[in-house]
Amino acid sequence: MGNEDLSKEVARRIKKQKGDAMKVIIVGGVAGGASCAARLRRLDEKAEILMVERGPYVSYANCGLPYHIGGTIEKESSLLVATEQMFRVMFNVDCRTNCEVVGINAKQKTVDLKNHLTGEMTTEKYDKLLLSPGAAPIRPPLPGIDLPGIFSVRTVPDARKIREWLDRDIDRSVGNPFTGPDTVSKPKRAVVVGGGFIGLEMVENFVERGLEVTLIEKLNQVMPPLDKEMARLVERYLRRHGVQVELGDGVAGFRKSTDGALEVLTASGKAHPADIVILAIGVRPETTLAKMAGIEIGMLGGMRVDEHMRTSNPDIFAVGDAIEVKNFVTGQWALIPLAGPANRQGRIAADVIAGRDSKFRGTQGTSICKLFEAAIAQTGVSEKQLIELGDKDYEKVYLYPNSHAGYYPGTKLLIMKVLFRKSNGLLLGAQVLGEDGVPKRIDSFAMAIQLGGTIFDLEEAELCYAPPFGSGKDPVNFAGMVAANILRGDMPICHWDGTEKGFLLDVRNPQEIEAEAVPGAVNIPLPELRKRLGELPHDKEMLVICRSAVRAYFATRILMQNGFKARNISGGMLARSHRAM
Amino acid sequence: MGNEDLSKEVARRIKKQKGDAMKVIIVGGVAGGASCAARLRRLDEKAEILMVERGPYVSYANCGLPYHIGGTIEKESSLLVATEQMFRVMFNVDCRTNCEVVGINAKQKTVDLKNHLTGEMTTEKYDKLLLSPGAAPIRPPLPGIDLPGIFSVRTVPDARKIREWLDRDIDRSVGNPFTGPDTVSKPKRAVVVGGGFIGLEMVENFVERGLEVTLIEKLNQVMPPLDKEMARLVERYLRRHGVQVELGDGVAGFRKSTDGALEVLTASGKAHPADIVILAIGVRPETTLAKMAGIEIGMLGGMRVDEHMRTSNPDIFAVGDAIEVKNFVTGQWALIPLAGPANRQGRIAADVIAGRDSKFRGTQGTSICKLFEAAIAQTGVSEKQLIELGDKDYEKVYLYPNSHAGYYPGTKLLIMKVLFRKSNGLLLGAQVLGEDGVPKRIDSFAMAIQLGGTIFDLEEAELCYAPPFGSGKDPVNFAGMVAANILRGDMPICHWDGTEKGFLLDVRNPQEIEAEAVPGAVNIPLPELRKRLGELPHDKEMLVICRSAVRAYFATRILMQNGFKARNISGGMLARSHRAM
Repeated sequence: MGNEDLSKEVARRIKKQKGDAMKVIIVGGVAGGASCAARLRRLDEKAEILMVERGPYVSYANCGLPYHIGGTIEKESSLLVATEQMFRVMFNVDCRTNCEVVGINAKQKTVDLKNHLTGEMTTEKYDKLLLSPGAAPIRPPLPGIDLPGIFSVRTVPDARKIREWLDRDIDRSVGNPFTGPDTVSKPKRAVVVGGGFIGLEMVENFVERGLEVTLIEKLNQVMPPLDKEMARLVERYLRRHGVQVELGDGVAGFRKSTDGALEVLTASGKAHPADIVILAIGVRPETTLAKMAGIEIGMLGGMRVDEHMRTSNPDIFAVGDAIEVKNFVTGQWALIPLAGPANRQGRIAADVIAGRDSKFRGTQGTSICKLFEAAIAQTGVSEKQLIELGDKDYEKVYLYPNSHAGYYPGTKLLIMKVLFRKSNGLLLGAQVLGEDGVPKRIDSFAMAIQLGGTIFDLEEAELCYAPPFGSGKDPVNFAGMVAANILRGDMPICHWDGTEKGFLLDVRNPQEIEAEAVPGAVNIPLPELRKRLGELPHDKEMLVICRSAVRAYFATRILMQNGFKARNISGGMLARSHRAM
Repeated sequence: MGNEDLSKEVARRIKKQKGDAMKVIIVGGVAGGASCAARLRRLDEKAEILMVERGPYVSYANCGLPYHIGGTIEKESSLLVATEQMFRVMFNVDCRTNCEVVGINAKQKTVDLKNHLTGEMTTEKYDKLLLSPGAAPIRPPLPGIDLPGIFSVRTVPDARKIREWLDRDIDRSVGNPFTGPDTVSKPKRAVVVGGGFIGLEMVENFVERGLEVTLIEKLNQVMPPLDKEMARLVERYLRRHGVQVELGDGVAGFRKSTDGALEVLTASGKAHPADIVILAIGVRPETTLAKMAGIEIGMLGGMRVDEHMRTSNPDIFAVGDAIEVKNFVTGQWALIPLAGPANRQGRIAADVIAGRDSKFRGTQGTSICKLFEAAIAQTGVSEKQLIELGDKDYEKVYLYPNSHAGYYPGTKLLIMKVLFRKSNGLLLGAQVLGEDGVPKRIDSFAMAIQLGGTIFDLEEAELCYAPPFGSGKDPVNFAGMVAANILRGDMPICHWDGTEKGFLLDVRNPQEIEAEAVPGAVNIPLPELRKRLGELPHDKEMLVICRSAVRAYFATRILMQNGFKARNISGGMLARSHRAM
């Protein structure tokens, strides 16, 4: 029995069984929609569920697309997590791919469906409608945007086209009168436009495939959820992997170059040669259907829903990348196009459609991105978000602990920025980068933020420790201890911005100073400090420097208890090395 | 200046500077003692701090000893995290190694010190005394216990002796009249007695060194913090790595064998040949000094302290492996010889000695152990602890999720057991085993337990996800969802114990049944279930089986909504495979 026949058979069977059971139509069969369909069936065996997906696949792993392009995930079929067939036989869901909702009549409670394979148009009634249309890659109307070789990465067919493009031969003789024997070659230069998650994943995967990669980013940092000084480390890391990183330069257009390839033209007037271009400058919520249905759209362009995932129309629900969600740390609306929240929203919508009282608690922006050997992760709010909100009741610390016991092989430096409330110690956000142990730490921070934990809770956290996995004082404990020292007044700190006018006291050893000195700083190595206190002025506040702010903390304590005013410069020389300037 | 001279000089300088500053003596210079000394100096620049350590090293990495013996940590010097010298120059602490407290006069507030290098005896007064003597490996007075080749693993010299023993040649000709040319060889057979943390780490490291290893454990499971059925997996894993695992058999004695090596004799009458024996049957709190000082000892044999780490004598504090701590989940006293809690206790004792109000919140038993490619971790309470306490208000789930997205290479099965309150969903404990992603999950559970999180919080947790690190529904979310399904009444479950009398419905596919069938179970593959409901009895409760309890959950929902009584067998065939029997 072919898919088409089976679909009809299932639909007939459902109708026959159900009598006047509730009919739910789900638009979009990937993360949010598929989760909703499966959950709804478990809650309501009698409901008539129709799930339509415009594309050829339901429930595919769009998060895996960059790795399929790079070759880490070899088979396209690996990306197909669940099939249309599975939704039919396992969940008794009338599942139709290549089927698009082209019209909604919210008064009549009907949708118009177009079968893209046959051209057939049908109209279906619904009792409840779930919109999970996702978000579309932004493609600005720039000159040359439609030239062959410029791709977005959103669907399985996108990935297939990119792989085919990378596998084909380019004739380099076009426009070249001196044609030699070596004029045909595979694509070897890639330009990735946009330094967010997908942009960075594509950069990595192109490098893995052996391409020369240029990353162009309009903002003056990559990875927008990070604060700028943390992004500096990512940019440095990209360059160390041979990537040409161009910040603060937007794309102005594209043109065909003389050698048959492309050129990416930027606002600053540069022309970057490219055999392939990836546009990864963000996504825009798909709201065509929402507008047809007269549903409220938020300020950020996503559908507005309440905590039950209900839109402004009580019979229409929406989930996933197409909606705005509340950041529960800031209370602000946000667009969070991530799979985890989409899945949870799908479940919640199903609960509510089935008559339950489930609520979405909002999002806290937890995310992670693999980049070569490293991981880049964050949860909660960033400092720039706090600044944007005019929130001044916060402090931050920079830390550079080992990922696990220093004496056990393979330990790597973790780079951590932790934000917390100055008034009560509430944990607000964390950013963690490193080549080992990042997920362990970001999830501890994430769980603490969710449950209203403070830096005092982090100080006392009992996290798993054995030499291959951590330290007796885990980096998360360490963050709590450092932050608690600040809030208890034991360790006043400052940050590199604004240290220019202070009295700088560097307590590192002479050989460290020789390798890198801070202009104007007085050097007294920590072991000599107690003996040489007489050399220091009592009327000035000392700003104390060491490599990672540990010895400077010890020095600050000695100074304070001897009647001096002192502050530790958070993160020491390591923080200085990636200041945002 | 030699160490001795420097020590005296520092002591003189401190006395001269301090006048009548508080004098604190710290007994034991490893985790708890060293943390206390460093923290106390930061809080009180004027205090006179004397830290004495019986052994030759302070602040060494005893957690790293097995890996040094195995060769993963090559240099002994790597284990010396901080030196005597460092405590003197950085912390102005009069630090003395090879120096033992041999007497305490709690009324006079003095301690008698013996310098083991010179034999010199001195008496020192204290205002506050901190006892951090640790715990000693248990060495029962068995026949042959003092034969050469039987070692404990507690100190750097222990590790050195073991390495020397392994590197030496054994003359196999002893007692063998047919001496040939190959009678001399390196040790090749190891017997490890005791299957706890150190025992397992030693097993791994001996295997890494190429030895044949036998593990003898008196209990009927390895790794006592785990429940027995979880330990089954560890035992299977050990055997798969060539380890001979002997459970439920205690050591009765040792004797020299005819080939010059040893034999380990067991209660059951077996004799295991061994070129080296490691005794890792646990540790006993060092309480000799406590008894001298007349301090209260708890039921478990450790020093009793209050939440401020104060013993029954208000001027004497105690921390580390030598004390009993409250398990804050059960409210019971426990011995937890782990580095993390010891470090935190040392800090807290320092705070209190310095006049602050810090409290130790108790322990939750978080721990992890590397074993070959795997990690074995737990936090909170185990089921056997709950049973021991007579606590019946709990439920458990078994889960077998992927460590990260199944389509991304390198994913491994995680094996999880999660315990929670039946009445309110409070998370009680978690046990996680696997070859990938264990620390990420156990720390999420640990943080949730610390902050009073419920399984409903786990359901909604926003943990980091990208294909190499997790799944849209993280295993921690998955645990929350499964548990919440139970508590909401959506999925009644049962466990393999007691299923013998039930009506077993197996919803796996025929080829799975062919590979392994459950005797007496009726098979209806899930995709056929809706059509074949008529074959099932309405008067019996169905116990539903599949591989990992996911399809059985779907089936349970179908059955319940069609008027049948049904329960999902938690963990399915995978849980069946490691039942404790």
